[in-house]
Amino acid sequence: MPEIHAARRRRAQEKIAETGADAALITAGPNVRYLTGLASSNAALLLAADGAAVLATDSRYTLAAQRDCPDVEVISERFIETRLAAELAGRGLRTVAFEAHEMTVERHAELVARAGGVTVIPFGRKIEELRTVKDPSEIELLGTACRISCQAIADTFALIRPGLTERQLAAALDARMTALGAERPAFDTIVASGPNGAIPHHAPTDRPLRRGDLITMDFGALYGGYHADMTRTVALGEPAGWQREIYELVAAAQRAGLDAARPDADVADVDAAARDLIRDAGHGDHFQHGLGHGVGLEIHEAPAIGYGRTGKLASRVPVTVEPGVYLPGRGGVRIEDVLVVGAGGTGLLTTTTRELLVL
Amino acid sequence: MPEIHAARRRRAQEKIAETGADAALITAGPNVRYLTGLASSNAALLLAADGAAVLATDSRYTLAAQRDCPDVEVISERFIETRLAAELAGRGLRTVAFEAHEMTVERHAELVARAGGVTVIPFGRKIEELRTVKDPSEIELLGTACRISCQAIADTFALIRPGLTERQLAAALDARMTALGAERPAFDTIVASGPNGAIPHHAPTDRPLRRGDLITMDFGALYGGYHADMTRTVALGEPAGWQREIYELVAAAQRAGLDAARPDADVADVDAAARDLIRDAGHGDHFQHGLGHGVGLEIHEAPAIGYGRTGKLASRVPVTVEPGVYLPGRGGVRIEDVLVVGAGGTGLLTTTTRELLVL
Repeated sequence: MPEIHAARRRRAQEKIAETGADAALITAGPNVRYLTGLASSNAALLLAADGAAVLATDSRYTLAAQRDCPDVEVISERFIETRLAAELAGRGLRTVAFEAHEMTVERHAELVARAGGVTVIPFGRKIEELRTVKDPSEIELLGTACRISCQAIADTFALIRPGLTERQLAAALDARMTALGAERPAFDTIVASGPNGAIPHHAPTDRPLRRGDLITMDFGALYGGYHADMTRTVALGEPAGWQREIYELVAAAQRAGLDAARPDADVADVDAAARDLIRDAGHGDHFQHGLGHGVGLEIHEAPAIGYGRTGKLASRVPVTVEPGVYLPGRGGVRIEDVLVVGAGGTGLLTTTTRELLVL
Repeated sequence: MPEIHAARRRRAQEKIAETGADAALITAGPNVRYLTGLASSNAALLLAADGAAVLATDSRYTLAAQRDCPDVEVISERFIETRLAAELAGRGLRTVAFEAHEMTVERHAELVARAGGVTVIPFGRKIEELRTVKDPSEIELLGTACRISCQAIADTFALIRPGLTERQLAAALDARMTALGAERPAFDTIVASGPNGAIPHHAPTDRPLRRGDLITMDFGALYGGYHADMTRTVALGEPAGWQREIYELVAAAQRAGLDAARPDADVADVDAAARDLIRDAGHGDHFQHGLGHGVGLEIHEAPAIGYGRTGKLASRVPVTVEPGVYLPGRGGVRIEDVLVVGAGGTGLLTTTTRELLVL
C-alpha cells in the first residue's frame, strides 16, 4: 500500500511547512512505520517539506525497506544517525525539525555536532497528532485485532477452573490469539486473580485460581501492527456481595464512559463521566489510573483520557474505556473496550459480553 | 531478594561518587529494575551518593514496588518526572547525574526547568557497565531462560513439515516456550524459510514451508526478566550443495567466534575470528551485521561484538555469537548461541546441536 503511505507523507509535509523547517527527521519507530510502512527497530525518515524522502535503516531491514517503500530512497547504514547527520549537512538543509519527545539527549548532541551549521528545532508530536484519526485501512486492521481478541477470550473462558494458574491462563489466552492470526500479544497479558486483582498491572504468577476469585484478564492481539486492548473480569463460583457490587459499579461507570466518548467531547469530561460514579459510590481512592487512551500502532497513544488531561475527541479516533475498582488485599474489577469515536453502533470493536460471567 | 539489589545500589553509589554528583537519576527501565527489582514501564530511581534512594512510580505499580523494594522509599505519583524534579530541588541536591542515552530532549528540558538551580550532568552508561558482568543469580535466571528455549526448539523440530507456515511454526515455538515456563518470548520470534532466509530480521509470513527450504528460527524465552537468544537453521529435505556449503561455513565461523570469546579478548578480534572465515570464503558481503551482543535484562545490551567496536570481554559476561550468510533471493543461514565468557565448559547456555538437521 505505498500510496497510503505517500498520502500520509503529504499530510506530514504540510506540518513540516507549518514549522518553517526545511525538513523533519522522524525517529520514533511507529511514526516511521506510519509514514513508510517499514516496521523496524532501527530506522529513521528524513522528510523534506518539498516531499523528498530518505529512509535510513541497517542491513537487517534493507530488503524489507526496498520492498515496502518502493517510492522512497532507502539508505542502508549501520549507524543511521551518523549517516543522516551527514545527509542534513550535505543536502543543504538549513533548519530541520526533530522529535524531541523521542530523541535522547545523547543522540541529539551527536546530531548537532555532526550536522554542523544546520539548525535543529523541536517538531513536537505532529506525526502522533496525524495518527490519532485513523484511516479506514487502520480501523480495519484494529477491528481484526479486536475480533481475534474477542474470539480468543470466548474460547478461553471454557478453560477457567480452580487449580489453573494465572500464568497458565495467560499462556492459553496468548496461544489462542496467535492461533487465531495475531502476530503476537499486543502487550504482556495480565491475569490477576483473587487479591492480585487489586494490582492494576499485575504480572501473572503461579497462583492457582480458587473458587471465590474474581479474575481480571487484560489482553489484546497485535495484528498488522495495530494493538487491541481489552479487559474482562469474571467470577469463579458464585460471587460475594462485595464482588458483585464493585462489578456492577465498574460496569455502570464503563457504560457512562463509553456513552460520553463522542466527537468533540472533552477528554476530562469523558473521564469524569465514569469517575464520578465510582467516587460517588465511595471508591474514588480505589480508581487512580486514567480512564483510557488511544490505540493504534502503539498500545498507548494519543489521546489520553484522564482527569487533568486536555483535548477533545474526534471521529475515527479509537480509544479504550477502562475504569476499575481496586481494593488492596481483597481484589479488583476492570472492564475495558475499544471504541471508535463517532462511528455509532459499529464503533465498539470489542463485543464480548460485559455482564458478569460466573464460571 | 532485596539484599542483592541493595548490593547493586552500593556499587552504583561508587559510580555516582566518581562523577562528582550528589545523586543520579536513573530512568532507564532495565537499570531501575537492576537496582530495585521493580519491573515497571514507568518508574525512576533517585539514588544519592550517600545511599538514600527514592523510587517513584505510578499507582499501577505502587503495591509491587512496596512489596519488591521494602528497603527503598516508594513514591506513588502519576507524573513521576514532575515529582522527581521537585525532589531534586527539595532535597538540597546541587549536582545530579542523569541518563543522557535514555532521557529524551523533551523530558530533559522539563527536568531542568522544574529542578531550578540544580546542575544536571550526563551519567553515561555507568549502570549498563555494572550490568555487563552478571552475578550468580542472574546467570541462573539466564540459564533457565536458555534451557527453556532449547527444550522448546527440541519439541518443535518434530512439527516441521511441508505446508506448515512460518507463522504457525513461530506460534508453536512461542507456545512451547510459554508452556515450559517462559514469561513470554524474549523478542519477536523470527522464522524465515526459503528465500526469506536472506532477510536477517524477517517477520514470519503465511509462506508454507517447502521441501528444499533452509529454515532459520531466531527466538528465545524471557525468564525472570532475562532474555535468551538463540538461532538454529535446519533443512527441510536433503539440502542442495550450496545450502550445505553455507551452513558448514557459518557453523565453522560460529565455532571460531565461540572459541575467541574469552576474558580479555578484544570484541573486534572476536568478530574478526568469525568474519574472516566468511570473508575468505567469498561471502564477506553476505554477512553485514555484528557478530553478537550481551544479553541480560535487555535482549541487546553491552558489550557489542562487531567490527569497528571497541572494548574487551570479561568473565561472567553472557554474549551471543551469531554469524550468518544471507544470499539475496536464495536463502540464508544463521547459528546463534549464548555463551558466558570465562565459564569454561559450562559457559555455553544453549546446548541444542549445531549440526545441520535434515528434517
